[in-house]
Amino acid sequence: MSLQSFQAVDPANGQAFGVEHPENTHDEVHNAISRAAASRETFAALSIPARSNLLERIALEIERARPELVSIANLETGLPDARINGEISRTTVQLQLFAAMVRSGAHLAAIIDLADPDYKPVPRPDIRKVNLPIGVVAVFGASNFPFAYSVIGGDSAAALAAGCPVVVKAHPSHPGTSELTYNAVQTALLAEGLSGDIFTMVQGRNPEISHWIALADEVAAIGFTGSALVGKLLVDLSKTRKVPIPVFAEMGSLNPIFITGSALSERGTAMGEALFDSATMGSGQFCTKPGLIFLGADSPQFIDAMRTKMHSVTGQPLLNKGIAERYNNAIAELIKVEGVETIIGNLPHLGFVVQPTIFILDYAIYKANPEFAHEHFGPTTVIVKCDDADFAEIVSALEGQLTATLHVGSDEFLPDLVNSMSAIAGRLILNGAPTGVSVTPAQNHGGPWPSSSTHTTSVGLDAIYRFLRPVSFQGFPDELLPPALARSNPDKIERTTNGVRGLD
Amino acid sequence: MSLQSFQAVDPANGQAFGVEHPENTHDEVHNAISRAAASRETFAALSIPARSNLLERIALEIERARPELVSIANLETGLPDARINGEISRTTVQLQLFAAMVRSGAHLAAIIDLADPDYKPVPRPDIRKVNLPIGVVAVFGASNFPFAYSVIGGDSAAALAAGCPVVVKAHPSHPGTSELTYNAVQTALLAEGLSGDIFTMVQGRNPEISHWIALADEVAAIGFTGSALVGKLLVDLSKTRKVPIPVFAEMGSLNPIFITGSALSERGTAMGEALFDSATMGSGQFCTKPGLIFLGADSPQFIDAMRTKMHSVTGQPLLNKGIAERYNNAIAELIKVEGVETIIGNLPHLGFVVQPTIFILDYAIYKANPEFAHEHFGPTTVIVKCDDADFAEIVSALEGQLTATLHVGSDEFLPDLVNSMSAIAGRLILNGAPTGVSVTPAQNHGGPWPSSSTHTTSVGLDAIYRFLRPVSFQGFPDELLPPALARSNPDKIERTTNGVRGLD
Repeated sequence: MSLQSFQAVDPANGQAFGVEHPENTHDEVHNAISRAAASRETFAALSIPARSNLLERIALEIERARPELVSIANLETGLPDARINGEISRTTVQLQLFAAMVRSGAHLAAIIDLADPDYKPVPRPDIRKVNLPIGVVAVFGASNFPFAYSVIGGDSAAALAAGCPVVVKAHPSHPGTSELTYNAVQTALLAEGLSGDIFTMVQGRNPEISHWIALADEVAAIGFTGSALVGKLLVDLSKTRKVPIPVFAEMGSLNPIFITGSALSERGTAMGEALFDSATMGSGQFCTKPGLIFLGADSPQFIDAMRTKMHSVTGQPLLNKGIAERYNNAIAELIKVEGVETIIGNLPHLGFVVQPTIFILDYAIYKANPEFAHEHFGPTTVIVKCDDADFAEIVSALEGQLTATLHVGSDEFLPDLVNSMSAIAGRLILNGAPTGVSVTPAQNHGGPWPSSSTHTTSVGLDAIYRFLRPVSFQGFPDELLPPALARSNPDKIERTTNGVRGLD
Repeated sequence: MSLQSFQAVDPANGQAFGVEHPENTHDEVHNAISRAAASRETFAALSIPARSNLLERIALEIERARPELVSIANLETGLPDARINGEISRTTVQLQLFAAMVRSGAHLAAIIDLADPDYKPVPRPDIRKVNLPIGVVAVFGASNFPFAYSVIGGDSAAALAAGCPVVVKAHPSHPGTSELTYNAVQTALLAEGLSGDIFTMVQGRNPEISHWIALADEVAAIGFTGSALVGKLLVDLSKTRKVPIPVFAEMGSLNPIFITGSALSERGTAMGEALFDSATMGSGQFCTKPGLIFLGADSPQFIDAMRTKMHSVTGQPLLNKGIAERYNNAIAELIKVEGVETIIGNLPHLGFVVQPTIFILDYAIYKANPEFAHEHFGPTTVIVKCDDADFAEIVSALEGQLTATLHVGSDEFLPDLVNSMSAIAGRLILNGAPTGVSVTPAQNHGGPWPSSSTHTTSVGLDAIYRFLRPVSFQGFPDELLPPALARSNPDKIERTTNGVRGLD
């Protein structure tokens, strides 16, 4: 039994409230991991229909718990109900998309090459390849997505879809939300006749918990969404393991926006309004928040639009005390830089509400003060006044980003700039805003270091491939093959046999 | 200009011979990397037909140089002409398979999701995803495959197919072979009107060269085939980089063989003969050499077959002095272990020829002496006499392997054992030998640590995915899209549009 416990904190007033949640001990954490590990083989062997049904059932149980989930999440995160409802919908849609993918068998990438005595340069045996689950996946929940990237968010859904047991480290900013979500998953497992050990969870604010998980022998991969600080800690911890494991860390980004002079003259006001909303929505707590906006020409319209928007901004508290403190400290430092203009909000100081702050500076000041090119979680962005001709240099000096956005004028094409942008980002947006990540097969959420630790995506269906590994079977009869490779193809999945896709 | 140089050594007599090869300096190595890096964007933008033509042209130039390549490789590696010819064929086949893959566009994994205002949970923009090359790939050539995993072997072919410039660190065991191969690639680049900087090479025995390459900022990924010692060094070096890069190291394996009592009683002699050949072919210098053979029952027939085979074994020198010395030292230590029976060859001591040595021991001795479960490159294997019932325990105690093989009797099925074996290996073989790696889409060559540093394959077409990263394009017109994503689909590649595969 845990010796320590902690309460949730209401961001609206900064007060602790509600039930005591366990601060899990070393033994409890290892027990959660061991239970998940013990279920590895059974869960990996689960049939395609049963695994697909489980994902759908989890979505159903989340829907059933929706009213309670919205209520507790609103209290614990300060996010408005509409946002929470939208995020729960996204979470259940993710589960359903993975359920459909599992049923199709597409993720298994089954390839069958029949024996061929005439194969060149040497005869070929019967050889069949399939993706198998890699083992226990540890998922670290994010504070800013209490559903879509928390307990049963994208990482967990992808891992379960892959056939991997999951150990969740719940984010301490929303312990009650995590507990209710965990219960919904357990109800689904029970309803499907499966062991609850397939999905375990630990809670606590003790940073040692992350160390215990990252160094546990039974953990085969880590999925993380959160700060660069913790993401890099997990990457560094994994380097000390005897047996290396992949750490899929999504660590945030500046999401630079490049707006040409031509675009500014055509629609400076509209872009100023749209990007103000993108930078401040959800109090600027999205990993795709535009944190750097480069103006290719002077545009009083753009700046004025932002100034006007600031008058009507409504505050929403930041997610927790740490985020609010880091935000306020960073803003206080940036304001001191000489020659920087600011547009500052005037919100009531309640709980973890902070002042939205927009910085406007010349390119020379930007280059001289690298702190403007650091991510600051919260309702702030940096507007850099430069020239279209500076864009190439700016792109080449930027670190890896989740997204990069370009706004151009009518009939303006900048292929070289787009090409350079594609080298530093995982998603490019034309004439739009980076916030709002569509959960769709063509989505990619992940970019070059340090926005992510690998080139893979944590959003969308391709996230599943992070938790699978290929294994070939040479010369095996149906009795010993995974069903996806058996000649009988019991689940009727599409496969590639001798280069031809079909049900053979 | 290099201050130092070195000569090749003839393994047949241990004597240095031929021209002096440069020992590349720090500046020369960085120059080779910088030249490759400078060609990154141009090479990435090369059209699909042009890239495919390049791969086919390289294959052609390798074929043209075949007589000279065979001649120098035979002298430098001690491998027989037939083996070298076979390996050159495998190398050109690999290039041609990648050329066909590039032409199909399959590796680009183009996914197009059209804008959809009714998409749930929120409207979807037009979003298109494609795989882009990750940048400069450093390839470390292997000594034991002077063509198929050396200068223009599987790693280099996969990288070029992906659109990545390549910097090769040639293996110092075959410098002349490397030089000739490099020249053939340069001839092909010239013939196709492309810059020679796309493919650079450095030579030398200085271990610092590996450090310089692994730590160079411009290097985006490493492909390595070789010893666990150097593979782990590259993995460890990469951990000290500011910006992490993937290291795809294939480091060898014990390739355990499990033979049930039933299989032994049915065909003990035939398996003894076949596995003797598998363990000693090419003087046991394959990464898939069976290094551990577990007999599920006493089988004098199996042992006798090995003993008889040893009388007729013909020697072939090991590839270089280091391998020969490490082999002789390891064998000398293992022979000292009490209670171990040996079958030893009687070959003439010429150059780097060593004595094939088979160890036969009880399970208790195996468990008490972990050195029998270490890879020993060369013509040796370890036969462990145990019981079918011990197999599960043995599998669970083994580290990750490239392959694991099971021999069963007629109508004998062991699904639980196969399942356990699939957790520790990248390829399973039933009733066969692990040597002979078919280059085919269903192939997987790579397994859990320490056989490989990642779960990916270095053999077969899927090797290309190691050198690609996904990038999404949101809201772009054809003018700014990579051709694979353009609505016009100029290369007529198959894509997945709104979930449907086709040319749309």
